[in-house]
Amino acid sequence: MSKDLPTPDRSQAHDGTLPEGRVGIALIGSGRMGAFHAETVSLRLPHARLAAVADPAPGAAERLAGTLGADGAYTDVTQVWADPAVDAVVIAAPARSHADLVVAAAAAGKGVFCEKPMAVTLADADRAIEAARTAGVVLQVGFNRRFAADWRAARALLDAGTLGTPRLLRSLTRDPGGFDPSRVRPDTIFLETLIHDFDTLGFLNPGAQAVEVFATAGALVEPEWSDRGLLDTAVVTVRFDNGAMAVAEACFEAAYGYDVRGEVLGSGGMATMGDGRRTGMAFSSAAGRVVDTVRGDQELFADAYTAELAAFVDAVRTGTAAPVTGEDARAALAIALAAAQSVRAGRPVRIDEVER
Amino acid sequence: MSKDLPTPDRSQAHDGTLPEGRVGIALIGSGRMGAFHAETVSLRLPHARLAAVADPAPGAAERLAGTLGADGAYTDVTQVWADPAVDAVVIAAPARSHADLVVAAAAAGKGVFCEKPMAVTLADADRAIEAARTAGVVLQVGFNRRFAADWRAARALLDAGTLGTPRLLRSLTRDPGGFDPSRVRPDTIFLETLIHDFDTLGFLNPGAQAVEVFATAGALVEPEWSDRGLLDTAVVTVRFDNGAMAVAEACFEAAYGYDVRGEVLGSGGMATMGDGRRTGMAFSSAAGRVVDTVRGDQELFADAYTAELAAFVDAVRTGTAAPVTGEDARAALAIALAAAQSVRAGRPVRIDEVER
Amino acid sequence: MSKDLPTPDRSQAHDGTLPEGRVGIALIGSGRMGAFHAETVSLRLPHARLAAVADPAPGAAERLAGTLGADGAYTDVTQVWADPAVDAVVIAAPARSHADLVVAAAAAGKGVFCEKPMAVTLADADRAIEAARTAGVVLQVGFNRRFAADWRAARALLDAGTLGTPRLLRSLTRDPGGFDPSRVRPDTIFLETLIHDFDTLGFLNPGAQAVEVFATAGALVEPEWSDRGLLDTAVVTVRFDNGAMAVAEACFEAAYGYDVRGEVLGSGGMATMGDGRRTGMAFSSAAGRVVDTVRGDQELFADAYTAELAAFVDAVRTGTAAPVTGEDARAALAIALAAAQSVRAGRPVRIDEVER
Amino acid sequence: MSKDLPTPDRSQAHDGTLPEGRVGIALIGSGRMGAFHAETVSLRLPHARLAAVADPAPGAAERLAGTLGADGAYTDVTQVWADPAVDAVVIAAPARSHADLVVAAAAAGKGVFCEKPMAVTLADADRAIEAARTAGVVLQVGFNRRFAADWRAARALLDAGTLGTPRLLRSLTRDPGGFDPSRVRPDTIFLETLIHDFDTLGFLNPGAQAVEVFATAGALVEPEWSDRGLLDTAVVTVRFDNGAMAVAEACFEAAYGYDVRGEVLGSGGMATMGDGRRTGMAFSSAAGRVVDTVRGDQELFADAYTAELAAFVDAVRTGTAAPVTGEDARAALAIALAAAQSVRAGRPVRIDEVER
Repeated sequence: MSKDLPTPDRSQAHDGTLPEGRVGIALIGSGRMGAFHAETVSLRLPHARLAAVADPAPGAAERLAGTLGADGAYTDVTQVWADPAVDAVVIAAPARSHADLVVAAAAAGKGVFCEKPMAVTLADADRAIEAARTAGVVLQVGFNRRFAADWRAARALLDAGTLGTPRLLRSLTRDPGGFDPSRVRPDTIFLETLIHDFDTLGFLNPGAQAVEVFATAGALVEPEWSDRGLLDTAVVTVRFDNGAMAVAEACFEAAYGYDVRGEVLGSGGMATMGDGRRTGMAFSSAAGRVVDTVRGDQELFADAYTAELAAFVDAVRTGTAAPVTGEDARAALAIALAAAQSVRAGRPVRIDEVER
Repeated sequence: MSKDLPTPDRSQAHDGTLPEGRVGIALIGSGRMGAFHAETVSLRLPHARLAAVADPAPGAAERLAGTLGADGAYTDVTQVWADPAVDAVVIAAPARSHADLVVAAAAAGKGVFCEKPMAVTLADADRAIEAARTAGVVLQVGFNRRFAADWRAARALLDAGTLGTPRLLRSLTRDPGGFDPSRVRPDTIFLETLIHDFDTLGFLNPGAQAVEVFATAGALVEPEWSDRGLLDTAVVTVRFDNGAMAVAEACFEAAYGYDVRGEVLGSGGMATMGDGRRTGMAFSSAAGRVVDTVRGDQELFADAYTAELAAFVDAVRTGTAAPVTGEDARAALAIALAAAQSVRAGRPVRIDEVER
Repeated sequence: MSKDLPTPDRSQAHDGTLPEGRVGIALIGSGRMGAFHAETVSLRLPHARLAAVADPAPGAAERLAGTLGADGAYTDVTQVWADPAVDAVVIAAPARSHADLVVAAAAAGKGVFCEKPMAVTLADADRAIEAARTAGVVLQVGFNRRFAADWRAARALLDAGTLGTPRLLRSLTRDPGGFDPSRVRPDTIFLETLIHDFDTLGFLNPGAQAVEVFATAGALVEPEWSDRGLLDTAVVTVRFDNGAMAVAEACFEAAYGYDVRGEVLGSGGMATMGDGRRTGMAFSSAAGRVVDTVRGDQELFADAYTAELAAFVDAVRTGTAAPVTGEDARAALAIALAAAQSVRAGRPVRIDEVER
Repeated sequence: MSKDLPTPDRSQAHDGTLPEGRVGIALIGSGRMGAFHAETVSLRLPHARLAAVADPAPGAAERLAGTLGADGAYTDVTQVWADPAVDAVVIAAPARSHADLVVAAAAAGKGVFCEKPMAVTLADADRAIEAARTAGVVLQVGFNRRFAADWRAARALLDAGTLGTPRLLRSLTRDPGGFDPSRVRPDTIFLETLIHDFDTLGFLNPGAQAVEVFATAGALVEPEWSDRGLLDTAVVTVRFDNGAMAVAEACFEAAYGYDVRGEVLGSGGMATMGDGRRTGMAFSSAAGRVVDTVRGDQELFADAYTAELAAFVDAVRTGTAAPVTGEDARAALAIALAAAQSVRAGRPVRIDEVER
């Protein structure tokens, strides 16, 4: 690390001490992200163990639990609440079930790591936050970019004052394409994709609150979607109460792969995040110089996914605060809902206009 | 150039043939850009010669003409119209005088290169375009980025079809700061700074027309300006009739210097422009690896400024069409006016709402 | 990963299956690298467990074993050979003891991972290789760069034929300085530092054998060392039997931190490795654009150190061949010895001139 | 330019003043480089004019002179010496005629710009230097890298003391291939290609003298050349009297185009030169991110070729010293001759062993 740049912590909770008892984790939802998180818990976290997997699809939980050596395999999530070997849960079920699962897990006294979005309405978000607070359990939300090296390094510059006051911010997400149209709703791009960017903008503008949102969006990748009101490309402008202006962009298809970037222009300078490089290798041939680039999120954010779960396990073990809170999730959700409303209304929408 | 990337023309009108008679150019306005253009005409363009300089400030034209060996030095611009040694003019006077000067120059039968903005109302823009058309003189506008290597290379990828259909575009301008507040009006950031970005967005989305504009802006560099309605930072969203969405950003101060960048995400991939490097040299020390970066526009765009004037001289010499037209200038102006109106109204503004 | 670039395996032996019994590892030598390897075994390898630590220094093994929860803590290495919980050893003791430790470990039937150099004479290297072969145990040497992402990606290009036949190679190592002169001998720079580069050159020129070596070296960081024959900076030219020419460079002090790079020019193009970036974050300020760079080997090669031990554990578990062999270590050693001899003789030295 | 990095002069002798009389230049040799230099003199240098072209090939001089508007077109070079319109000459004839041409031009009182190598023996180099000194004419040699932005920026860091004392240097040249074997002699790679790198090493190690050279070389691009003793690939180690060690590399074919790079590791840090980028544009597609790279020397060094001739014209006009001297050319030649001798002898060769 350069001397002038603060060193963010890369320790990922590997503090060099021996685990005294591992935190028992149940995975709820065994889809793509669920299976990845289960593998992380099972293989990459010295202080955790995979206690159970739950998935309503017949056989799904059993298969994953079998592969990874978890004792419990449930089709009924209430079995998770009842399992004393489960200290905490990782929720990777469909988005619309998240808030109810958070509430139920908290009621059962389990620590909760919930994939984003934590909720799809502000009322649900408030309910989830309240449930965790009442139960006194840890509630952490899966905004993994906060744990990615580039973003941590930029935030460290903000915290050190080096970047000064943020003026212009940018965060973008582009997926490599090949998505399943049947899983896309009109607000998917805001609630499931851009929600990361909305959280990132807050992470990179610490202490500020979003005030007003303007969104424009369309079906550019799949023009025939337009009739069904579906959106695959969006640009969202966010104005914050400290005057900073931000742009969040998303597109469901980039021909070149997976692309996540960020940028902060502050009074002290600019930090850019996300150079898209997979390795530092470059190949020069008659076709030019080709930089080795990332093609998928689990590749780009492998370390970040491990780090966020390691941090969660630590919070559960040590009783310390989660590094990404339900309140953080609520703030990002409010922007997402305002963006969806802005597209429908064709005008800027104030955050305080968003319905609970 | 890589084999897969089309090779844009770098010839800058140096076609290897001897000039048969040089085009006589008069510089109107001897300020920072005017003096720079005069030097370019005098020293870097084999097919042109600096015939005269005009500036109402006593002694200014004489000083510059003396240094660069121009015969004419006028305080009254009508002397330029009457000077038979002047084949064409380069207008670098204050923005609000541009349209009238274009009309007068055209009436005098002089070719016209006009710094941006060509006009500050659509009516004036139409008047300037009409005057040049009627007189049959060349009219070119100073959107220099179209001649900068990065932007030409990106446009070549678009023209070759490699980038596919544009979906998301970005163009930004950040000045190094130290500007004079007394020269800033409420619409300066749109009419004089972002006008470049609005033109660039059109250049990188060929054939498309802007449809709707939403702008948010503020005084973040100089917060005390807010009371006077002045703006130093802005984010503008532009929607085009081919569905593409674009963001233009500007800030009057970047701690790190001058920054101009562009980005096009098309169906075939992404082109990025403007890496900010001054040379390919990098210095690694205890402070990290420092890349040699640009600090001013005349440094970043030195070649582009020469190329745009070389292209203008060629158009005048050979009677061919100007590569950047009055219509291009009008299109960028319409976006700029819509952006200014959007800030005042706090809502998106359609291009067809902008008053002539 | 780009479609045109082969995808090297990043799996690090995390194959998603549950460990059935973990390989018991003893760490021999609890210095800087030993402690780091012990931590890796203890915390980052799901298929291994730290069974014991051995170090002759009173209390050293106990301290490390205590921190990491290893059962055995020995001051006498023979206790390791006798410990039935130890399936394999990681040798991180002083270089000159390596060969004897390999021989003893093999005799005890333990798998052996040996830090470089495996031996400091060819006779010792042969003895170590023979001991492992006779005992039928795995013998792997700690050339970690073979597991680093950049180098694997370059090698994948070679294996795929994309790079063609190697013509010119480069490998360099620069330490951040602050070394302890009392630990440096005249041949340290060749046997302990450049040995990595010599192995890398072989790794990037697969199947070729070094033929002749010319080295020039000096004490440039610490000029007063010259009297004692010590060397802190060296340039070594290596000619291979396929005609390829290579340069290995080392310096014990780079003001900017730790720097390891590689380059292969083949008939099909060039691969470069080691961009020195710690993250993809860049910070632009009045001082220019600063790239976030690496400052230490354990930071740069964190993943590679884990991957080499994971591969070793896999070889021990599954009885498969080690990915870096004693023969590889011998080949690198032969170049190192020839280089040291070349400096003494002031002339090129053929590999077949090096004494056994 | 970054504040911490010294700003090299980019002015290229365009000092903003009007030329009072242009320096009359004759081009000697109308081949590829000659024609390029003639075009530069004719079109890009406000203080020079192309007075004549000389070439023994029937019609060649006339053709080039006709295209560029030079008055004189000679097949006999003595006509140049006699032409009073010729103030100075640019020698771009075959290398082996350079020294005689320098001597004759100096005798005729003409200023001399001589392409590299100025001579092919040390005796000839001394003769050329002496002739220019006796005649009191400017003698400049075509080491264009000294005028390239990256190299000037690195040298500025050296001059400012920021880089400290050089320890390790690297300079390399790779041509894009497609060369004509009939024009290659055994020492071509040293005398015509690497001579640039040898000069660069001196430029980047100011004040130091080369002491010893070791070269290894072969015919790797065209293996069948080996029988004829021809060389297309070489690695040369140079030791300087200040202890610094340097590597110069060359290859007549790089699949990816033209590649010239430099590197200095000093006690204060490292400067790298030559990032190979043609523009700052990058294109990301399914094939990865492709950087826009240079493919030819006249593209890479366009500005440097103009700058070196501008500096020469200035030296002639103002009577100031040439920025690259005959002594510089002699120093690079001595290394080249030592390298050729080293390959023949298979051992390091001291500079003082090279025959005059």
